[in-house]
Amino acid sequence: MNDLHYVARWGDPADALTLPPAVAALLGTALGVKAARPAAHAAVLPPVTLDASVLDDLRAACARVDTDDAARLAHAAGKSTEDLLRLRAGDAPGAPDAVARPGGHDEVEALLAACARHHVAVVPFGGGTSVVGGLAADRAGFAGVLALDLAGLGRLLRLDPVSRTATFEAGVRAPIAERLLAAEGLTLGHFPQSFEYASLGGFAATRSSGQASAGYGRYDRMVVGLRAATTIGTLDLGRAPESAAGPDLRQLLLGSEGVFGVVTELTLRVRPAPAAHRYAGWTFPSFADGARALRALSQDGPLPTVLRLSDETETAINAATGSGPDADGGCLAVVGFEGTREDVSARADAASRRLTELGGTSLGETPGEQWRAGRFRAPYLRDALLDAGALAETLETATFWDRLPETYAAVRDALVETLAAAGTPPLVLCHISHVYETGASLYFTVVAAQAEDPVAQWRAAKAAASDAIAATGATITHHHGVGRDHRPWYGREIGPVGVAALRGVKAALDPHGILNPGILLP
Amino acid sequence: MNDLHYVARWGDPADALTLPPAVAALLGTALGVKAARPAAHAAVLPPVTLDASVLDDLRAACARVDTDDAARLAHAAGKSTEDLLRLRAGDAPGAPDAVARPGGHDEVEALLAACARHHVAVVPFGGGTSVVGGLAADRAGFAGVLALDLAGLGRLLRLDPVSRTATFEAGVRAPIAERLLAAEGLTLGHFPQSFEYASLGGFAATRSSGQASAGYGRYDRMVVGLRAATTIGTLDLGRAPESAAGPDLRQLLLGSEGVFGVVTELTLRVRPAPAAHRYAGWTFPSFADGARALRALSQDGPLPTVLRLSDETETAINAATGSGPDADGGCLAVVGFEGTREDVSARADAASRRLTELGGTSLGETPGEQWRAGRFRAPYLRDALLDAGALAETLETATFWDRLPETYAAVRDALVETLAAAGTPPLVLCHISHVYETGASLYFTVVAAQAEDPVAQWRAAKAAASDAIAATGATITHHHGVGRDHRPWYGREIGPVGVAALRGVKAALDPHGILNPGILLP
Repeated sequence: MNDLHYVARWGDPADALTLPPAVAALLGTALGVKAARPAAHAAVLPPVTLDASVLDDLRAACARVDTDDAARLAHAAGKSTEDLLRLRAGDAPGAPDAVARPGGHDEVEALLAACARHHVAVVPFGGGTSVVGGLAADRAGFAGVLALDLAGLGRLLRLDPVSRTATFEAGVRAPIAERLLAAEGLTLGHFPQSFEYASLGGFAATRSSGQASAGYGRYDRMVVGLRAATTIGTLDLGRAPESAAGPDLRQLLLGSEGVFGVVTELTLRVRPAPAAHRYAGWTFPSFADGARALRALSQDGPLPTVLRLSDETETAINAATGSGPDADGGCLAVVGFEGTREDVSARADAASRRLTELGGTSLGETPGEQWRAGRFRAPYLRDALLDAGALAETLETATFWDRLPETYAAVRDALVETLAAAGTPPLVLCHISHVYETGASLYFTVVAAQAEDPVAQWRAAKAAASDAIAATGATITHHHGVGRDHRPWYGREIGPVGVAALRGVKAALDPHGILNPGILLP
Repeated sequence: MNDLHYVARWGDPADALTLPPAVAALLGTALGVKAARPAAHAAVLPPVTLDASVLDDLRAACARVDTDDAARLAHAAGKSTEDLLRLRAGDAPGAPDAVARPGGHDEVEALLAACARHHVAVVPFGGGTSVVGGLAADRAGFAGVLALDLAGLGRLLRLDPVSRTATFEAGVRAPIAERLLAAEGLTLGHFPQSFEYASLGGFAATRSSGQASAGYGRYDRMVVGLRAATTIGTLDLGRAPESAAGPDLRQLLLGSEGVFGVVTELTLRVRPAPAAHRYAGWTFPSFADGARALRALSQDGPLPTVLRLSDETETAINAATGSGPDADGGCLAVVGFEGTREDVSARADAASRRLTELGGTSLGETPGEQWRAGRFRAPYLRDALLDAGALAETLETATFWDRLPETYAAVRDALVETLAAAGTPPLVLCHISHVYETGASLYFTVVAAQAEDPVAQWRAAKAAASDAIAATGATITHHHGVGRDHRPWYGREIGPVGVAALRGVKAALDPHGILNPGILLP
């Protein structure tokens, strides 16, 4: 029961949020949320299909291979709302037969070889925070499924202060990495919402992007070298910051979600830990006005470290529930700077002048600091919403600036129409979460009353939103990854020639097809 | 004769340089260069092996397919010193059987299909400026070789001023692209030494990097979308600035040197044309001191638009020959800023303070402007050197900052020792040409007396330098590409698993293996 409680929600139960009364009130009055279904008392795990001789062979490759229910349940799913709803119902169809906990690259490679021999599917497991079904491998046709938990690959291997790079094993969780770097006055600067639990290797496999990506860059820009174990041997990449020696194979492994190999080491660009920060709130009369202002800073500077903009609905809901300022019916932007004291001061002042010219009104530092303090809390709030009988989930995309208004409207409309038609009219909140010179990402949060079958309810809404994303020419995911959930749209996005290229790599590096079957590849 | 004269040198003969007297004197006294061999009067072309029915089929796919000697000779080779030496001797073994000049994407695709049917090797040809044998496809086993000259793909297709992107056909030469963008107040900011002749598609295929990469970024960072024709269909990539939808397939095509497909369109990030620029010369007591200063600006800013540093030898030779300032026995750095007037002024002033703290001495703007005015002239000087009987060639690499001194010394020593042992002690000049937070590139220029067989002479020196690059863990090329010349070292660099990944893509997208056989793939 404790295990189920743990895996069916985000993070440590000790950190659970109580639903703020204002939110609870809103659920009833605005969305018609009724009392929650009680959670199951125990999860049903599929039978273990690996026989003893196979397990012996896996144990010869890796000292620690567990088959107990607790280990299997802890690796049964990721953290999408669908995952959590299923687990709360006691349904754990994705549970692996066994969990291996290798201690280093060589054990990973030995495990892959053993799994290839016995046709065992392998699911690499970092922080387990996938929200796109990235841990739900196909079982059909395989002798069984092995979760490859990389937590044992937990060391900082090298620090090069001259080149400002750090080489980590891939299982290091983000907070540990930051702690190790902080001891040397350094930071990676990668702070996605999954920060508290996600691993450095998981960031690489899923092409992660952090909340401070405007300043520190996306994760794929931080990776200057990587090592991966494949079923045909080891791949070592990254002899220079950049190279013209053929295609950038680092960028082929980044985002490959474990289907080509298992990333075991990463060399990352690091930076001096910021001596100062200044986060402020700004309000703009409309989402369109605010987006123009974000575009101006992204294209002509000064570029903040964090730059975000909530739409009218998100701003109003946050104000009504006490998690954001009253923005006078407008849209809240968070504008954050990190760096040396001088630099932060100069850039923040220049940005303030520019944002004022662009129609913004400063709300001071309080809303900025409030955002910063709560930046990793949304997944805990989702648990409280699910507990209360609401459906709550997020999805995201990215596109070029000129297409942004169209994609925003199309996705919003698709979500509203689909859920309203199902009798559960939703609240749809959106913000611009990451900016580039040529475009930006859109991050949607959806809250509605749970229908009788909330999994089917969300699937229909998600499909409509994904169709809208595709129809307006945007990408199916800016930073969540493809996993299992985005595969059909991903296939359309890269087309048959793109799919053929990926299948060519797959056939070469994983000829037995044991790595994450059913994930990524359309 | 005119054709041979044209193809056996860089650029238009009207722009040819006369060797400055100081350089001519240096060749005789310091290097023992003797009078040049006379060039051949006519080139020997291999016989055309494509029969009439195949040519008919190619002409059904593309209106313009030429087999005359002038067309074949103009597409016989790139612009490496080895290419030029061979052509000057009348040797054109790489001449294609025919030259197709398609007018658009669909004609390229139709040509690829026809070539696949008849097993004709295809060499995509942009500006023809490869210096790594990138245009010398294998002929063995094929019905013949077709050069695919992309000059007819010459249009600006779309300009999106909101997203700041421009979509060009791939055959557009860089100066034309800049002229088209300048009319709209925009620039790409990509200025490699090949700028005057190279094409936008060639930049993509070879993962080019321009002299202003510190400010405008490498070419691979400018490409937000691309279209490629393959033998199995069309690949369209780039729905957003960045995406987590799988591996970045754009980065698989970039640097693929035509072996997977032919890039026919590119969507590029563009920027406002700079209103102001300020280029200055600085001197540092030693190359190591200067490198430390470049690293400081690269890591902590202010980051210039152009940042370069010549070693002691290059600085002294440039001063002695009138192409650079007297740097008092030190090392010359060029530090250039481009942007708005205010921005250039603020950044240049801040950089001046920092460079002074770091031991630099300003030489004022004259050396900076002198470098800027002559930035595309080196290839013309090489022609004059070859005419005078000297061997002159360049090579380059990149590595992380902590390894830079070791790679610098090892490559320099390898070149000096190999050429001295052959009885032709060289001058070896080097500069840091591109900088990153984590490392930099090294660009070497070698001048020596020509030996009896200058091709063999250079091959031995180049192999020794490439071995030194590999032995010190650097990349075999930072911006020249792999072509034919770097293949053995490239194979070692990415290892057997990396090679297998590339071969997997090749088998999927070009199952007949007709695209640039002998290029890139180890």
